[in-house]
Amino acid sequence: MTNVRIFVTYKQSVFDPQGETIKDAIHTLGHDEVTAVKVGKFFDVTIDATGAAVDQAVKEIADQLLVNFNMETYHYQVLEEAE
Amino acid sequence: MTNVRIFVTYKQSVFDPQGETIKDAIHTLGHDEVTAVKVGKFFDVTIDATGAAVDQAVKEIADQLLVNFNMETYHYQVLEEAE
Repeated sequence: MTNVRIFVTYKQSVFDPQGETIKDAIHTLGHDEVTAVKVGKFFDVTIDATGAAVDQAVKEIADQLLVNFNMETYHYQVLEEAE
Repeated sequence: MTNVRIFVTYKQSVFDPQGETIKDAIHTLGHDEVTAVKVGKFFDVTIDATGAAVDQAVKEIADQLLVNFNMETYHYQVLEEAE
C-alpha cells in the first residue's frame, strides 16, 4: 500500500488569474509583504501496490485524467509506502 | 524572502465528493488498485519577510481568506528562506 501526493500546477508560462486575485485580496488585508501567489491542486491517492507499479499507475492516472497538459504540469511524491 | 506552501484540505470528518468522483473515474480506467482519493488545494506564497513575521502573515491570510474552517483545515511548510 502506497500513499502518493500528486501536485498539479500551471506551467510557468501560463498566467494564473486565481493566484493574482488572491494576491490582491491579501494586499487588501494589509499584507503588502506578499509578492506572489500561485494556486495548485493536489490529490492524495492510496494505491494497493508498491514500487514500479505505483509509478506506472500515477503516470497513467495523470496522463488520462488529472492533468491538462496544455496548461498544466504535475509531479508527485510518495508520502508513505508499506508492504 | 520566504516561499511557503499552504495546504488546504477537507477535515477528516467531511465527505470529499470530488475525490470520490475521481476515484470512480480511475476505476473506469482500470486502476482498481486505487482505494482512496482526497482532493486539496495549495497556495505557493512568496513573502518579503522571514521567521516569525512569516508565521504571523500565513496565520492571518489563512484565517481571513484562504480557509473555510467549517469544513477545511490547513498546514504549511517553508519551501525556501533567504535574507
